[in-house]
Amino acid sequence: MSRFADVAAFDAALAALPAPDEQAITAARARQAELTKPAGSLGRLEDIAVFMAGWQSTARPALDQVRAAVFAGNHGVAARGVSAFPIEVTAQMVGNFRAGGAAINALSRSCGAELAVIPLDLDRPTRDIASDAAMDEAECLAALNAGAGAVGAGTQLLFVGEMGIGNTTPAAALCAQAFGGGGALWCGRGSGVDDAGVARKTLAVEAALALHGRDCTTPFETLRRLGGREIAAMAGAILAARLDRIPVLLDGFICCAAIAPLVAWQPTFTDHCLAAHCSAEGAHGRLLAHFGLAPLLNLAMRLGEGSGAAVAVHLVRAALAAHNQMATFAEAAVTQAP
Amino acid sequence: MSRFADVAAFDAALAALPAPDEQAITAARARQAELTKPAGSLGRLEDIAVFMAGWQSTARPALDQVRAAVFAGNHGVAARGVSAFPIEVTAQMVGNFRAGGAAINALSRSCGAELAVIPLDLDRPTRDIASDAAMDEAECLAALNAGAGAVGAGTQLLFVGEMGIGNTTPAAALCAQAFGGGGALWCGRGSGVDDAGVARKTLAVEAALALHGRDCTTPFETLRRLGGREIAAMAGAILAARLDRIPVLLDGFICCAAIAPLVAWQPTFTDHCLAAHCSAEGAHGRLLAHFGLAPLLNLAMRLGEGSGAAVAVHLVRAALAAHNQMATFAEAAVTQAP
Repeated sequence: MSRFADVAAFDAALAALPAPDEQAITAARARQAELTKPAGSLGRLEDIAVFMAGWQSTARPALDQVRAAVFAGNHGVAARGVSAFPIEVTAQMVGNFRAGGAAINALSRSCGAELAVIPLDLDRPTRDIASDAAMDEAECLAALNAGAGAVGAGTQLLFVGEMGIGNTTPAAALCAQAFGGGGALWCGRGSGVDDAGVARKTLAVEAALALHGRDCTTPFETLRRLGGREIAAMAGAILAARLDRIPVLLDGFICCAAIAPLVAWQPTFTDHCLAAHCSAEGAHGRLLAHFGLAPLLNLAMRLGEGSGAAVAVHLVRAALAAHNQMATFAEAAVTQAP
Repeated sequence: MSRFADVAAFDAALAALPAPDEQAITAARARQAELTKPAGSLGRLEDIAVFMAGWQSTARPALDQVRAAVFAGNHGVAARGVSAFPIEVTAQMVGNFRAGGAAINALSRSCGAELAVIPLDLDRPTRDIASDAAMDEAECLAALNAGAGAVGAGTQLLFVGEMGIGNTTPAAALCAQAFGGGGALWCGRGSGVDDAGVARKTLAVEAALALHGRDCTTPFETLRRLGGREIAAMAGAILAARLDRIPVLLDGFICCAAIAPLVAWQPTFTDHCLAAHCSAEGAHGRLLAHFGLAPLLNLAMRLGEGSGAAVAVHLVRAALAAHNQMATFAEAAVTQAP
């Protein structure tokens, strides 16, 4: 059963985003004010707890079910030499995910997330965005629905990640289309290309923008023309989470680029999201600024796979531990500041 | 049995600081280069793993025994109205620590640290630093040894925290003495004083510097005159950890101020330390810059108790999970970048 039966269903979902529970937010804030610490002294940990309360609709949010979904896709544009790695590596890394040997396996175990790995037609790369639309309508809908289907029932916090050799190129195209600035502004070294590789990426993005720009009139069309399967899947998962009022930790550049068309269309789209970290890929910080989100971590990570989000899950755990387990001034018989 | 039998023993320890194991560092770096990810793409998580390897003397560092030690002390200078809370709160909060209801209890449980709570003569505040030396020699040695004694056998990572109403004032004095700049530069709102409170703190620090400055000729004398019991205990613990080659996560302003005299004396003193976070107390960022340390977290926390360090333990866990559990390119049969 598909969450987004057609393009109209996707558009309708984006036009009717649920809001957080203001009562739960107020109750969580009131609880924070009573805990045995100077007011505000847990800083962003307090904000995280209040955010989680709003989306879980309870003053005492929980974190027993954290879901990680990693999507993999291949990209026609990779043939233009935009990555440091050959395209075969996408499938090899899916094998690594399934065997438990990748960074996201270790980090998901470490943070207590249940990891789902979803490869999307790896033997059928999307078409080269510099010369064609990446996907047709059915392909893009299928990818969005693959994402939505991976959110999981009972999930209390979701993060999504990706593997897709060459995918910083469509990501850069999505950002440039959503927020302007041209290809060069959004193209960086990705997994480690040299200057010539960055120049090839920039050319590919400029060609894609010239070809598709005027037809990118909706988030769906932008994702379909400039995106990729794993990218659309991430967008579908993050949108489906919103519909189910599940909070989301955004990972790095590709994850955020996937929702750039949705955010440009509807700036409140990220209300259910925390920015887990700021990637070393320069465009990511710029994109988060467009989103109006301050990253929780800044550890010079640039791996993808959802790795930054997995690390930030630990911060949510710490925030909820303090929020739920601390005694109030009254309970502990501690004198409050006047 | 005291780690520092006399002042000479403390000075001798500070003059013979062990270095990390370069072989283990090299082996850990070599392992990182073989793991299935673009080189360097885990950013500071890679640096953390290599750091831990150097101090644990193994290419595969572990984190089964994390020790948290929270010291509490009272301060004569508190009578000058330098805190938003009355001095009774120190003992009340120790009760809260023992009952398990404080932030550090929740955060230590969350990060898997074993918490020791060590109150130090709470009914006998140190003397007012603005008019006297905080401690005599025996008192300061006792505090240093209380710290050293709390490090714990088999500890693989240590962090220390504090509770002491009024202790941002001696902390500011220690920083000003160690790195210059005068009292106003190092005095902030602490647990939440108003402008008048900040002015009283600044006056107290200036008076203390004028009274003791020329006699602060060694780290010990500086700690004894301008510090406090919980502050000296933290310094003793962090020094004892170095002697035992135990890595340390530094917490916020008070924790770092405690070692400021040691770092000013011997800049390599922090080689076994990671800066867990940057506090919202403005002087902390300035102090970390003097230390040459980049904080791992910047979450606007300003609670003390070791709370910021407890959150950063999660990052060390994530770093070691990736370092130890990931497959190499060869193991996973993934093609490496050329």
